[in-house]
Amino acid sequence: MRRYTIAILVRNQFGVLNRVTSMFRRRQFNIACLTVSETETPAYSRITVLFDGDDVAKKQLVSQLHKLPDIVSVEEFDADEAISCELLLIKMPNDPVHRDEILDAARAFEAKIEDYTRDSIIMHLTGDSRRIDNFIDLMRDYGILEICRTGVVSLSRGGQVMRQVTNL
Amino acid sequence: MRRYTIAILVRNQFGVLNRVTSMFRRRQFNIACLTVSETETPAYSRITVLFDGDDVAKKQLVSQLHKLPDIVSVEEFDADEAISCELLLIKMPNDPVHRDEILDAARAFEAKIEDYTRDSIIMHLTGDSRRIDNFIDLMRDYGILEICRTGVVSLSRGGQVMRQVTNL
Repeated sequence: MRRYTIAILVRNQFGVLNRVTSMFRRRQFNIACLTVSETETPAYSRITVLFDGDDVAKKQLVSQLHKLPDIVSVEEFDADEAISCELLLIKMPNDPVHRDEILDAARAFEAKIEDYTRDSIIMHLTGDSRRIDNFIDLMRDYGILEICRTGVVSLSRGGQVMRQVTNL
Repeated sequence: MRRYTIAILVRNQFGVLNRVTSMFRRRQFNIACLTVSETETPAYSRITVLFDGDDVAKKQLVSQLHKLPDIVSVEEFDADEAISCELLLIKMPNDPVHRDEILDAARAFEAKIEDYTRDSIIMHLTGDSRRIDNFIDLMRDYGILEICRTGVVSLSRGGQVMRQVTNL
């Protein structure tokens, strides 16, 4: 059992996201996170999925994904060959006892303050998953009010690109 | 027709994402972006969806979502009351003719260089959707190789939080 990251380039057709998530469900893969996002071409979206499973099942899944309607390409990422990052929004209590510790940690992690009110502080932080995990772990001591992570997006290093829309 | 942002707190049960996307598909809503992400409690995930539709259909959708199994709460965001941001990864050609223009724009937008090779530059940028759109628009002049956006995540301003897991 290990964690995989794949990116799926899809045509923006009705129901395509549903077909993709159904495929993961049918094959009993646990999705750790999933993002659907616009691409450089409005007619196409990109679905990035992190999921846990074994290698054989993963290969079958990728092969099945290729056969779905409106799937243009499927790319697997190797952690060493990809730039991956995600974004965290975290809401902390603005508590005089812990405020300095929270703000010191925010500075150390280069988190950005997005909202500061009498009773709460919202910060945003970007980076790889480990960095995000570490910051969250630190904040647990001060009573996290709310967290929202975007999930990971990845691009392969260097000049290569996913099959280009213009080549279709 | 306008754009709505909702956050759905769900139990991490098998098939819950699929049920949510099916609901949008059945009601023929166009999902602009969707993120599924971990929360402060491992047993729960948060699905943030931006979609286009009319107000009556949106109200019906929210009411139907509440009735699905494993849905804990549904929150609608008003743009003025929420902190929303997203993350962009963009890969540009490392072309001597345009390199300075690309790097100048990156500095102006406070984009961060994630990868720099002979033939390409990968940058990351965070902010609201308009800021991301503006940067992409600027980069179009220099031949975008690849784009990946996380989609928007939102937290309400101030101390209020979505229905807390501990209150369930």
